[in-house]
Amino acid sequence: MSTVLNNLNNDTICAIATAMSDAGIGIIRVSGKDAVSICNEIYISGSHKHDLFDHKENTIKYGFICDGENIVDEVMISYMKAPHSYTKEDVIEINSHGGMLIMNQILQLLLDHGCRLAEPGEFTKRAFLNGRIDLTKAEAIMDIISAQNNFALESSRRQLQGKISTKIKEIREKILYQMAFIESALDDPENYDLDGFPDRLKEIIKPIISDIDRLVSTADEGKIRKDGIKTVIVGKPNAGKSSLLNALTGDERAIVTDIAGTTRDIIEETVRLGDIVLHVIDTAGIRNTDDVIEKIGVDKAKSKVEEADLVLYIMDSTSDTDDEDKEIINLCKDKKTIVLLNKNDLSDDIKITEDIVRMLFSCSSDEYLPVISTSMLKGQGIDELKDAVSKLFLNGDIVPKQEIYITNLRHKDLLRQAYDSLNLVIDSIDKNLSEDFFTVDLTNAYASLGEIIGEEVGDDLVEEIFSKFCMGK
Amino acid sequence: MSTVLNNLNNDTICAIATAMSDAGIGIIRVSGKDAVSICNEIYISGSHKHDLFDHKENTIKYGFICDGENIVDEVMISYMKAPHSYTKEDVIEINSHGGMLIMNQILQLLLDHGCRLAEPGEFTKRAFLNGRIDLTKAEAIMDIISAQNNFALESSRRQLQGKISTKIKEIREKILYQMAFIESALDDPENYDLDGFPDRLKEIIKPIISDIDRLVSTADEGKIRKDGIKTVIVGKPNAGKSSLLNALTGDERAIVTDIAGTTRDIIEETVRLGDIVLHVIDTAGIRNTDDVIEKIGVDKAKSKVEEADLVLYIMDSTSDTDDEDKEIINLCKDKKTIVLLNKNDLSDDIKITEDIVRMLFSCSSDEYLPVISTSMLKGQGIDELKDAVSKLFLNGDIVPKQEIYITNLRHKDLLRQAYDSLNLVIDSIDKNLSEDFFTVDLTNAYASLGEIIGEEVGDDLVEEIFSKFCMGK
Repeated sequence: MSTVLNNLNNDTICAIATAMSDAGIGIIRVSGKDAVSICNEIYISGSHKHDLFDHKENTIKYGFICDGENIVDEVMISYMKAPHSYTKEDVIEINSHGGMLIMNQILQLLLDHGCRLAEPGEFTKRAFLNGRIDLTKAEAIMDIISAQNNFALESSRRQLQGKISTKIKEIREKILYQMAFIESALDDPENYDLDGFPDRLKEIIKPIISDIDRLVSTADEGKIRKDGIKTVIVGKPNAGKSSLLNALTGDERAIVTDIAGTTRDIIEETVRLGDIVLHVIDTAGIRNTDDVIEKIGVDKAKSKVEEADLVLYIMDSTSDTDDEDKEIINLCKDKKTIVLLNKNDLSDDIKITEDIVRMLFSCSSDEYLPVISTSMLKGQGIDELKDAVSKLFLNGDIVPKQEIYITNLRHKDLLRQAYDSLNLVIDSIDKNLSEDFFTVDLTNAYASLGEIIGEEVGDDLVEEIFSKFCMGK
Repeated sequence: MSTVLNNLNNDTICAIATAMSDAGIGIIRVSGKDAVSICNEIYISGSHKHDLFDHKENTIKYGFICDGENIVDEVMISYMKAPHSYTKEDVIEINSHGGMLIMNQILQLLLDHGCRLAEPGEFTKRAFLNGRIDLTKAEAIMDIISAQNNFALESSRRQLQGKISTKIKEIREKILYQMAFIESALDDPENYDLDGFPDRLKEIIKPIISDIDRLVSTADEGKIRKDGIKTVIVGKPNAGKSSLLNALTGDERAIVTDIAGTTRDIIEETVRLGDIVLHVIDTAGIRNTDDVIEKIGVDKAKSKVEEADLVLYIMDSTSDTDDEDKEIINLCKDKKTIVLLNKNDLSDDIKITEDIVRMLFSCSSDEYLPVISTSMLKGQGIDELKDAVSKLFLNGDIVPKQEIYITNLRHKDLLRQAYDSLNLVIDSIDKNLSEDFFTVDLTNAYASLGEIIGEEVGDDLVEEIFSKFCMGK
């Protein structure tokens, strides 16, 4: 951590820490060695008698933010003294009226008096750099804030409580002990005996590898449970795409009419199916068109399918299939796809069946291709859709089974690196290579795991992680 | 005020007081006699040693919100003891992570432990009912939060500082003195002489009437400066409506293409021209159409014109006028309208001039009908548009001239009532009616003015005013 600590800024930062829209209360947060003196310049206490230097730590005072003679706002000022604060620096929180304009005026005053506007996540970055929290905890804070469902919130909470850190530290300690033993034995062969050590090491490493493997295996499911599934609705014009989106979201956001080609803009909605979140994009009808606007939509749709985790292909079961269907199927072929045969309420006119769909997809009998009969008009088929999504992404388990889920891609990658390094140790043992070889790979595994909790990380990574934070945190 | 005071709730209320979207910090506010005991049930201090009853007033403590055994969030708790709080009741503010999901979980816990969800504005309503602020100040708080420009913010601030209250109280005192004098004279004619009193009263009332008249006269301008101008863009398909909106907003929100009838949904944007705010609605092209979707748009456009303060009628100056133009002009005829002759960059093809426009509008030479030559393609004409708006709505004064502006319609109506009542007093004097008649109208004027600051107001009005507030305030 020493490299990044050197990079710690000594200036005083400020930001609006509450959400950027009008509300009852807003907080402008200030952190750094000049927090008190800068705020003092723009503050008059309610009694006109005190200044901020008189404030005891962890107290709140009533007063006014002033721009020279003019009162900008009536506020409450909280003071948290270093090191007993979020950042371990002096922190002042100005509790103002929560209007955007007035919060921005206070922020501007702070900037005029010598604060620097904080980068997104910079308060938490300082908490990390000043040693109050490790990297997984810092990441957990961001995840708690942006949690969109109970799973995401609960797993982030566990991460903030240190469950992942603890697990990682536990594994690292075991590895470190073996590294130390090898080193000691090489230095001091009289007192440390390496006879039979490779076999013993193998027996120690194997369960660690399994442990890591188990953690990595939670990642895909964890990510889906946490972030949801990028979903695209495709289908020919008038098959019922917008009606499906409306059935999922329960409102009339997309204009639904009986004219082909109505949905021109890409509309994105977040939909909850139980505790699974779908980020659904409704697209313009896939069709060859000369209409310029429609065309932009179709092109966008194609690129959205490429980025998607799941394609919902809605077909009008009362229409014959044609070349356009082939084009759409071609688009979906490498994707997890659910086919919705819509308009089943018009049962006399059904022309497309599940068998026809499987044939069109050239789908073998052991492949899982969910085909659901739906009526968007009557709201039929949504429960079946939910089941199909759960089977495709969560092995059918609606309720999370693990205590710890890896939900962060960075953690997953590093765990996999540690996994690979430890397997190399096993390889070296099997090949009867010397202990030096073990040490190299043990060290790599140790370093990869260290990077998860923020030990031995470079400046660039720190910048990258904290830049994803929201302002004021 | 006694009637409403009786109605004061004695329960403990809670609400999320920061904005309803993910951010670094969120505040859940609790107010009422059980604030401390309810929060204490779901709080564990950081040191696990203290409960909230140990907290000194105006302090902040670190700890956890817990649901039984489970930690819900890591928080800072602020405690403001009655009567030294926003509501003059015990107030606890829970400073949590600012994610929507986590804030809602904390809110739910409070509800489960006996809090009631606050109505919008209920904290401020309690501040009013408990006598901490008068009604104009309560209204000012709402206006400060929702202020969209510097004028709105500054006039609300003055209102919160009591400038309007002071002015109203000053006038009321003068009226009350005269009421008291009449009553005393009627009760005790030996010591109070009413000889010549009507003439003296007239001389006292007249400047008060002028004062009130001056206040009322600031209202229209104040309202426009504060709330902005409801503006509708109309014009035939492809005249440049969406391009105008884009030129004003500076982004590409409306899809702009060269196909007539592109803008189907009504798009509303807030646009700042200097310190004037336009709430601009772009409408579907006004034209007779069989296209169902397009038709919905056109009907909406017509109703929007009826509600608008200002119509921006954009014409393609390179096209001939036709019956559709007549239809649009018919639509605008009772509205403040600015005509934009667009596409002036195609100077060889100009077919519509200012003279033709004035003729089409059957506009006499002394009527102000701004006609501006524009090129949306080149961004020409926006400054001229700004000047025209300022002339139409602010007599050309960009900078506010008054110290106090009436920006609240309720205040304006009540001032006008007081104005009318005082004029009736003058009438009665001129008709040589008895002093009893003066008293009736003086009392009415006194009551109307009292209603502005919240003295002598009924429960219904209190409900209505505070229901417009945002949650948590």
